Amino acid sequence: MARERLVVVGGDAAGMSAASQARKRRGPDDLEIVAFERGRATSYSACGIPYWIGDVVGSEAELVSRTPEQHRGNGIDVRTCTEVVAIDLDARRVTARESESGREYTEPFDSLVYATGSVPMRPPVPGIDAPGVYGVQTLDDGVALRAELDRDEVHRVVVVGGGYIGLELAEACQVRGMHVTVVDMSPTPVGTFDPDVGRYIADAVRAMGITLVLGDGAAAIETGPDGRARAVVTQSGTELPADVVVLGLGVRPNVALARQAGIPIGPSGGVAVDLRMRTHVDDVWAAGDCVESVHRLSGQRVVVALGTHANKQGRVAGINLGGGYATFPGVIGTAVTKVCDLEVARTGLSEKEAEEAGFSYVTAKVDSTTRAGYFPGAQPIRVKMTADERTGRLIGAQIVGREGAAKRIDVLATAIWNEMGVDEILGLDLSYAPPFAPVWDPVLIAARKAFEAVEAQTRATP
Amino acid sequence: MARERLVVVGGDAAGMSAASQARKRRGPDDLEIVAFERGRATSYSACGIPYWIGDVVGSEAELVSRTPEQHRGNGIDVRTCTEVVAIDLDARRVTARESESGREYTEPFDSLVYATGSVPMRPPVPGIDAPGVYGVQTLDDGVALRAELDRDEVHRVVVVGGGYIGLELAEACQVRGMHVTVVDMSPTPVGTFDPDVGRYIADAVRAMGITLVLGDGAAAIETGPDGRARAVVTQSGTELPADVVVLGLGVRPNVALARQAGIPIGPSGGVAVDLRMRTHVDDVWAAGDCVESVHRLSGQRVVVALGTHANKQGRVAGINLGGGYATFPGVIGTAVTKVCDLEVARTGLSEKEAEEAGFSYVTAKVDSTTRAGYFPGAQPIRVKMTADERTGRLIGAQIVGREGAAKRIDVLATAIWNEMGVDEILGLDLSYAPPFAPVWDPVLIAARKAFEAVEAQTRATP
Repeated sequence: MARERLVVVGGDAAGMSAASQARKRRGPDDLEIVAFERGRATSYSACGIPYWIGDVVGSEAELVSRTPEQHRGNGIDVRTCTEVVAIDLDARRVTARESESGREYTEPFDSLVYATGSVPMRPPVPGIDAPGVYGVQTLDDGVALRAELDRDEVHRVVVVGGGYIGLELAEACQVRGMHVTVVDMSPTPVGTFDPDVGRYIADAVRAMGITLVLGDGAAAIETGPDGRARAVVTQSGTELPADVVVLGLGVRPNVALARQAGIPIGPSGGVAVDLRMRTHVDDVWAAGDCVESVHRLSGQRVVVALGTHANKQGRVAGINLGGGYATFPGVIGTAVTKVCDLEVARTGLSEKEAEEAGFSYVTAKVDSTTRAGYFPGAQPIRVKMTADERTGRLIGAQIVGREGAAKRIDVLATAIWNEMGVDEILGLDLSYAPPFAPVWDPVLIAARKAFEAVEAQTRATP
Repeated sequence: MARERLVVVGGDAAGMSAASQARKRRGPDDLEIVAFERGRATSYSACGIPYWIGDVVGSEAELVSRTPEQHRGNGIDVRTCTEVVAIDLDARRVTARESESGREYTEPFDSLVYATGSVPMRPPVPGIDAPGVYGVQTLDDGVALRAELDRDEVHRVVVVGGGYIGLELAEACQVRGMHVTVVDMSPTPVGTFDPDVGRYIADAVRAMGITLVLGDGAAAIETGPDGRARAVVTQSGTELPADVVVLGLGVRPNVALARQAGIPIGPSGGVAVDLRMRTHVDDVWAAGDCVESVHRLSGQRVVVALGTHANKQGRVAGINLGGGYATFPGVIGTAVTKVCDLEVARTGLSEKEAEEAGFSYVTAKVDSTTRAGYFPGAQPIRVKMTADERTGRLIGAQIVGREGAAKRIDVLATAIWNEMGVDEILGLDLSYAPPFAPVWDPVLIAARKAFEAVEAQTRATP
């Protein structure tokens, strides 16, 4: 039997997980694997970049879990600094361009994994492409921003966008001693949280000394005589001076190449895939930030750019490519982040998402502590729960607090995954000891309150 | 309608939760509530006593969540330092004895909550009742031990029993600068953990400077000329000098009074109750450490003495007494503790328990970190999983590690509660960000390994 060839487009989490799994199941005599990566690095933690910029992580190299050399040693032909610029589905070949030499060449494939990740959102405002404006998506982007900050000539940073990435980058600059302003269109930061939780986050972020300009988007980047960005002008006309402007607006799936090639894009804007990570084109697979997933609560297709999904999806594609059987069962919108010592997490649907998905719901909110109240180091934690008012089923949860608060979201993610009612959650046998939780874990107190709300609603509605 | 009277026997977590819930639903004109408590305090955290002894918690008062005065203000007639010494089920009355005066009197009841808690296990060895030997179960026990340690004449402590309580008390004495030896019959400490995990715990405990004498029980307490304990002699003949001997052998349900009264005791040794916490005697309820619960995995009746269950069970009894409907759905053996900076947790069945319950199983074990490996403060975590080999269902998990490790057990407890297979767990949408987890959470890596073990077993077995 002739040896087959797998081409992987994109050498980060999803692409290299797929390549590694396929290699694990099919030897080099059976399957040749060529992986193209536009940048210099493979298999790095994009989520770790803000922490490297903030000097919390000591070196760029620590973010790399597997280098190109390691992948090559594993029988994967990794070609870095080489961008795939076209995919010809009929001829079954890709065109690659080496970034240094500009040389282009084609490479045939029998099967293909499309794993191009995402691109930072860039608002279409004047000056957005000026020097001094940084998007942070790839490791190379991070290198560029860090080099700029390391020159020690940056005193004022404006971050455009107050979502996860925006706040993480704001903290990174803040801890390096810069004066940081975050601008966001929404009335509260991290718009995927409910406004009441968002206000809690806003208060905590401001208390850290970060300036928040909310309900006001960037209208233009003003440049100086040297052509460099020197201020962000907001829609309301405020001028925010900046030595550096950082784009933290989030990302969108990188599907330009797929679109050109004719690989179908789904309604959410990500590459459409099935449970096994197959696109609608034979022998073409896709995984990672560029694909869409099913949201298990709303039933909608959504794009969630997150390293953990990328790794899982890449693994699933690779197992299937390797002759096994695996599926990616969808997402429920779990996310966590940390801004200085504030921990925030969510899972399931926000109130707005629940409304859009047609749920009638009740909410409950409790303030408690991460350990027994009398135990040293007990930290505040607020748990908010949203339950379907007719069935009592948990459909969303949000947590804000200090150390030890946020990871509790995983219990609620597991509960939502299993379609538990809030009354059932109340019965869960969760671990208890004074250094770890109050005798009623905050999660259980919230479930109790949510159940009371469901009960009250049930009695009220004939 | 004549006013009814509820008598509560035992004024800690279970009893007072029941009383409070009943009061919430039925006013004083409808239901009179009299609660008898042998000791001085009500509603205190027995689990917090070791931390108060170890000076981690500053005062005894902090362990009390509701004082007798507070309960009285809430319309509950609390009588402290008053022990119920007999229950007459036919005459529907209890006999109470005031500990100071010795005065006895009877009190009639229409309904009764039996919530006497547990008593520390005392091995039937010579010298066990000598001065200088301390069991630590009630707050008053804790006060006595602490007073002894505060005299600053205690240099050597021998703890008999290396379970949760034994290790917590060992740490308490260790942090106060005493030389501590723990003696336990089992080959590894905390016998409810699998031996391989137990060895990890033993190594960590020894590294803290605590001496462990394992596989060797206490044969006698040797007393000095003053009649005080001065050494523990083990079954193998070793003499362990001690200024104070602490009993940390765990507890057994306090059912003496129930047995005398004719309230049926279950096969596990705890008071037999139904889902709603009713005993087999009309209008007599029971809750807390003295009752038995259903283990949801083995189907067996078990006694688990834990504050969180006591609170839940008390709440359930009180809601039912108050005219509502609530149930306690059983336990799955979740537990957590901390010995110095070592965190240990378990849920579901240990290997031994799985065998006894008739499961054929596979196990998987992974070593990982609590945060992304490159993130500062990432701590070691070991996750062990046990899965039913035929169905792939998770039936047990154990975690050992440092800060941030143990509370992850709750995700696995929730997974077991929902009868998830390890392959399903692998698909869970758990939270990820570098300060909180590696891109594959240790829990997911363990599930992946356990699934591989199930798969391998399935292929091997025709």
